[in-house]
Amino acid sequence: METAKIKELVSRMTLEEKASLCSGLDFWHTKGVERLGIPSEMVSDGPHGLRKQDDKADHLGINDSIQAVCFPAGCATASSFNRELVTKLGETLGEECQAENVSAILGPAMNIKRSPLCGRNFEYYSEDPLVSTEMAGALVHGVQSKHIGTSPKHFMANNQEYHRLTSSSEMDERTMREIYLASFEGMVKKEKPWTIMNAYNKLNGTYLCENKEMLTDVLRREWGFDGYVMTDWGAMNDRVEALKAGCNLEMPSCEGATDAEIVAAVQDGTLDESVLDKSCEEYLNVIFKYEENRDKNAVFQHEKDHETAREIEEECIVLLKNEDALLPLSADKKVAFIGKYAEKPRYQGGGSSHINSFKTESAMDAVEFLATVKKENITFAKGFDDVEDKADEALAAKAVEAAANADVAVIFAGLPDSFESEGYDRKHLGMPNCQNALIEAVAEAQPNTIVVLHNGAPVEMPWLGKVKAVLEAYLGGQAVGGAVVNVLYGNANPSGRLAETFPLRIQDTPCYLNYGGEHDKSVYSEGVFVGYRYYTSKEMEVLFPFGYGLSYTTFSYGNLTVDKKEFKESEKLLVSVDVTNTGACTGKEVVQLYVAPKGGTIIRPVRELKAFEKTELAPGETKTVTFELDSRAYAYWNTEIHDWHVETGAYEIQICRNAQEVLLSEEVQVESETVLPKVYTLNSTMGEIMADPKGKAILEQAMSEMEGMDGESTEEQMQDDSGVINDEMMAAMMEAMPLRQMLSFVPGVTKEALNQLVAALNAAE
Amino acid sequence: METAKIKELVSRMTLEEKASLCSGLDFWHTKGVERLGIPSEMVSDGPHGLRKQDDKADHLGINDSIQAVCFPAGCATASSFNRELVTKLGETLGEECQAENVSAILGPAMNIKRSPLCGRNFEYYSEDPLVSTEMAGALVHGVQSKHIGTSPKHFMANNQEYHRLTSSSEMDERTMREIYLASFEGMVKKEKPWTIMNAYNKLNGTYLCENKEMLTDVLRREWGFDGYVMTDWGAMNDRVEALKAGCNLEMPSCEGATDAEIVAAVQDGTLDESVLDKSCEEYLNVIFKYEENRDKNAVFQHEKDHETAREIEEECIVLLKNEDALLPLSADKKVAFIGKYAEKPRYQGGGSSHINSFKTESAMDAVEFLATVKKENITFAKGFDDVEDKADEALAAKAVEAAANADVAVIFAGLPDSFESEGYDRKHLGMPNCQNALIEAVAEAQPNTIVVLHNGAPVEMPWLGKVKAVLEAYLGGQAVGGAVVNVLYGNANPSGRLAETFPLRIQDTPCYLNYGGEHDKSVYSEGVFVGYRYYTSKEMEVLFPFGYGLSYTTFSYGNLTVDKKEFKESEKLLVSVDVTNTGACTGKEVVQLYVAPKGGTIIRPVRELKAFEKTELAPGETKTVTFELDSRAYAYWNTEIHDWHVETGAYEIQICRNAQEVLLSEEVQVESETVLPKVYTLNSTMGEIMADPKGKAILEQAMSEMEGMDGESTEEQMQDDSGVINDEMMAAMMEAMPLRQMLSFVPGVTKEALNQLVAALNAAE
Repeated sequence: METAKIKELVSRMTLEEKASLCSGLDFWHTKGVERLGIPSEMVSDGPHGLRKQDDKADHLGINDSIQAVCFPAGCATASSFNRELVTKLGETLGEECQAENVSAILGPAMNIKRSPLCGRNFEYYSEDPLVSTEMAGALVHGVQSKHIGTSPKHFMANNQEYHRLTSSSEMDERTMREIYLASFEGMVKKEKPWTIMNAYNKLNGTYLCENKEMLTDVLRREWGFDGYVMTDWGAMNDRVEALKAGCNLEMPSCEGATDAEIVAAVQDGTLDESVLDKSCEEYLNVIFKYEENRDKNAVFQHEKDHETAREIEEECIVLLKNEDALLPLSADKKVAFIGKYAEKPRYQGGGSSHINSFKTESAMDAVEFLATVKKENITFAKGFDDVEDKADEALAAKAVEAAANADVAVIFAGLPDSFESEGYDRKHLGMPNCQNALIEAVAEAQPNTIVVLHNGAPVEMPWLGKVKAVLEAYLGGQAVGGAVVNVLYGNANPSGRLAETFPLRIQDTPCYLNYGGEHDKSVYSEGVFVGYRYYTSKEMEVLFPFGYGLSYTTFSYGNLTVDKKEFKESEKLLVSVDVTNTGACTGKEVVQLYVAPKGGTIIRPVRELKAFEKTELAPGETKTVTFELDSRAYAYWNTEIHDWHVETGAYEIQICRNAQEVLLSEEVQVESETVLPKVYTLNSTMGEIMADPKGKAILEQAMSEMEGMDGESTEEQMQDDSGVINDEMMAAMMEAMPLRQMLSFVPGVTKEALNQLVAALNAAE
Repeated sequence: METAKIKELVSRMTLEEKASLCSGLDFWHTKGVERLGIPSEMVSDGPHGLRKQDDKADHLGINDSIQAVCFPAGCATASSFNRELVTKLGETLGEECQAENVSAILGPAMNIKRSPLCGRNFEYYSEDPLVSTEMAGALVHGVQSKHIGTSPKHFMANNQEYHRLTSSSEMDERTMREIYLASFEGMVKKEKPWTIMNAYNKLNGTYLCENKEMLTDVLRREWGFDGYVMTDWGAMNDRVEALKAGCNLEMPSCEGATDAEIVAAVQDGTLDESVLDKSCEEYLNVIFKYEENRDKNAVFQHEKDHETAREIEEECIVLLKNEDALLPLSADKKVAFIGKYAEKPRYQGGGSSHINSFKTESAMDAVEFLATVKKENITFAKGFDDVEDKADEALAAKAVEAAANADVAVIFAGLPDSFESEGYDRKHLGMPNCQNALIEAVAEAQPNTIVVLHNGAPVEMPWLGKVKAVLEAYLGGQAVGGAVVNVLYGNANPSGRLAETFPLRIQDTPCYLNYGGEHDKSVYSEGVFVGYRYYTSKEMEVLFPFGYGLSYTTFSYGNLTVDKKEFKESEKLLVSVDVTNTGACTGKEVVQLYVAPKGGTIIRPVRELKAFEKTELAPGETKTVTFELDSRAYAYWNTEIHDWHVETGAYEIQICRNAQEVLLSEEVQVESETVLPKVYTLNSTMGEIMADPKGKAILEQAMSEMEGMDGESTEEQMQDDSGVINDEMMAAMMEAMPLRQMLSFVPGVTKEALNQLVAALNAAE
């Protein structure tokens, strides 16, 4: 609907009607205004599948939802590093929504994985804001291409489940911009999501629902967001403050209570009615976007979408280890499938994203019908149960026996439901002891042991040295079994890469000492050093680095070229590199480009991912992958100008196998086009002034005029044979000396003269 | 002089005379007022020896000082963990000052070793505030017992040399109190230093010279300091602001300039003259304390003090490794002394603490006269030079040959002067490559190789696995050679313990990513996790932990007893433990008591040193060491009440070999006697209310009255078989739910009813 018509519609609404649009009708529906033709619409949970509740929806929204398709969770899809694939997922979800009359899907969930302990990490994409914003953007793009809204969440800084309703995430401006806002920024700017869901928590003391800086200044003014902001369910704090801050819709229903507060606030003058009008306009714009683009022919194609779920998962699986090229398996091998998850895979997490899958395809199911595998060569042993972490000796013994009698053992292990879920955080990185013990026992009996992991976040792998291969399947959706079997037997070549670091120990993680916070304050003291930014900068060993993943083929790199070596920040840089498939089968490689500042005055991570591209290569094939970098590739957030800033200097363009392995690099010289405000004072140092060519000229002139104040002669005076001042100390002293200190150490210098000098320095253009 | 007399004296002074007392006469003297009998007095650098400049003192204060005795530096004396020994050092310095007409010694330097890179760490004591404050206190006690003033420095948060004149140390209140102020607190309260020297740097944006919170609120009001504050040399920023803040004396001379500013400020009303009067009173009180207690008979006994310097160093040396009990050496062994430092030891650091030693005793010198060693069995090879880090093949070859031809090789290695000094920070933890290479080559040729280290701060030891023994001599003063030889030959049994952690790599240090800061802001983001508090809490491996050190004998512990198991915070706890010398020679053990909170709601280090005692034991002897702990042993700094606070709960009293090795422990239950202010709001969580017995009763009552709001039935309503909410999530949700969220999830609950509930909760006593 045109803006003018929407404005006109709002102008015809009563105050009460307008206020009524600021909260939901019930748990899953927005309110309509019948007399004006404003419809009530349904929204549904589900970034990786539709959790649409049926008509018997209870007031808490947790009763059975319709049967749907569970796709791989965010942890998995991020590992694909494949934007097109995730867009396809989005399109599929969009079609399902059209078929089910769902106007918007409450996702993607895209908070930064600050700690691997966050209970909801399985829904999130990455520890890296670029991967997060690109993957989320791809999903939003797909869903919205079907004229269905998205609600990227949880905006923002919701990085722990612990006390998420009352805790304040406390961080500095630069961290906020470079990590936690950056995770949303690209997605919002490029994809214009129809809605945004504000997080439960506070940011630096202010609830996100009423955080004007975030909801209005950053989201709408800076980034151009033009949809509506809704609360997470039950995230409302102060309704009127929230409306002023830019929160349009409270969910779920408030039973009319806060609508009345809005009416009262307008009536008593504490809320300007124009704020309410604007909110309604923003809201109605989205409502009609959906209504006017309904696809009456849409059908929820369960079986087809199930196939899509399997295809997607095949590209998400990360091959972490493959000693002696044990994988892929030949169909002739006798293989023991071991572990409960071979029969009943864990493929999704608990909480609002939980899908009522219309069917589940386990690895044992897949064995029945996938052509890649000969079912007569497969045996199964349950090995463990995951209801509680207790070894079942009988089950384990049978598993070991099955393993010993086969050529290869594949253990389907991972984390039980209770280990990771929305609502609470993990306490440790361990898998259940009974599973770890089983893996060790099986590996003891069978040298060719493979572990397939079903989990939403990194785990410790105490048995890693004892098994030959490991596949990280993550929470792979309802078709995970088929995907895993296809990968095991080489029908699909694994091409996933880790979108998060697997640390060796929880104690190694950047926020280990502070995670969860105290007294509802969670201080982000690690700053921008999140994930690989921390491990690489501290040169720490990890279990598997960010960006890591193997393939059944191999890739080599060459011909890294940049189209210029010295340039101004506003100039685009073209970087290209050749990638060759040097192995025997077709495979996909994720080409990763990092930028590493060399020098500079800002404390920064040693390298940051600035571009990536997934590309498919036939054996022997070479492709040239080209990236275009803009100034953001070199920029940090400057807290003085409150903007991105590029320091003049050298930067290394690095093509990396993963965050810890640089393959090729080229150094470029970037020149800043931003002049930072500079004010000299009596506390400006000699070094600072001398580094500024104009400052140097003025200082030297002033020194020659001021008696006894000549730099050289001061240095001479300080010449020292006593051992009190060595050459290094002298140099450091001269560089670091503030002008005012001349008053103490250089006879004849007056404050008046120094003030004149400062004035001259500041007057210089 | 009596207070009344001083007040009377001040009342007779002109405004100009009073202002004149606010700055120095020249580089080393305070001003007097002749007509009123106020003398000019001299102060001198030198926490570990007198750096009194002779009469030809230049205006920069760096020309030759008188010949004096250089004692071990703070890094060494802290390792003694011996308060009496350090007090003896103080007494000796005090006597030297009396003899030399020096009214105050500018030390001790007692900043916390935040990073091993700080260039001035060699002067400082420890990474632990208790060790720092106790050692500094012992020195102050000794000096002041001779009626000589001290000027503990640099107050405060001066933990880097980089840009110390302009950099701001940025830290939170709790970190400031528990670490950086705590380093000074005990010393000030117990020893009442005559003066305090404020640091060059800023704290949270305000120069220490004009930081009223520090100089007046904390130092004088809270801690009872009654001396005068002087600036570090050239640390003055704004004179009038500084005077208001509590900075009495600017040093060195301002040539009258800032005195005039003070006069002008009083005249124009911007400075209350009573502030100036009070400053003069505080100042004169100290001036006359010195004048009225002169010791006319004092003599600077150079040779005697040299012996004292050796005795002290013998107890500072830390035995880091002693494989196969290679040490002590028998006099009959043929020993090759290798390395420049055997002949020309590095025994002090550069900068203001640099002493013009009247003589130096190297290990080779000591061989000449110490009875413990047969000089005919000793050979010497220089091995390396330290003027530049360049291997000298000829020197090295001779050293290897000497080593091969002996029974034992002792390499005297360490850091050259240019590697650590006042004025700049170290860049890495490495020793010169040429020294490391030499050690490896010698160890290759001689299996019985010992390394003696001369350095002011931790170094990496890549060769550690290849040598049999290591002695850390630190910067051991002018008699270091004799002390080392006495230890090598067992005339002295080493009893030093590290007062700082030796990390494996600089990347492991808590502030590695932030040290030095950027743009003159140094953010202390590691908070209270400094030194061992970080390594133990993150369970990191280190090279040598805090508190570590071996002996030629062995000690066993037993009978740890506490005089009560449950008590109120105000009650003293007596802890005693038996220590037995289980070896064959007399030795000294440092008994270390740490407290480890078990549980609690505050993020705290796993353990903190709360008491220590050094004790001497003959072979077979057992002594009972008793500690008395008060509430500070369990307290953290609470930022709500701005005071120390003890959480009710369990604490473990741990007797440790070092910070990483707990030998014995006892758990006690401490009950807080402080009620923290508590205000319930709509954002108080169910868990928080239920944890408060009164809150629980009120909440349960209210729930039974409010329809549909009964906790159990809400839980029942949320029962869920769909997999959306598991038991753990339910429990977490109920615990973390703020009252206001009932408005979203519990039908019939009104804001009015909740507000009444909150009022009832707050009304409950």
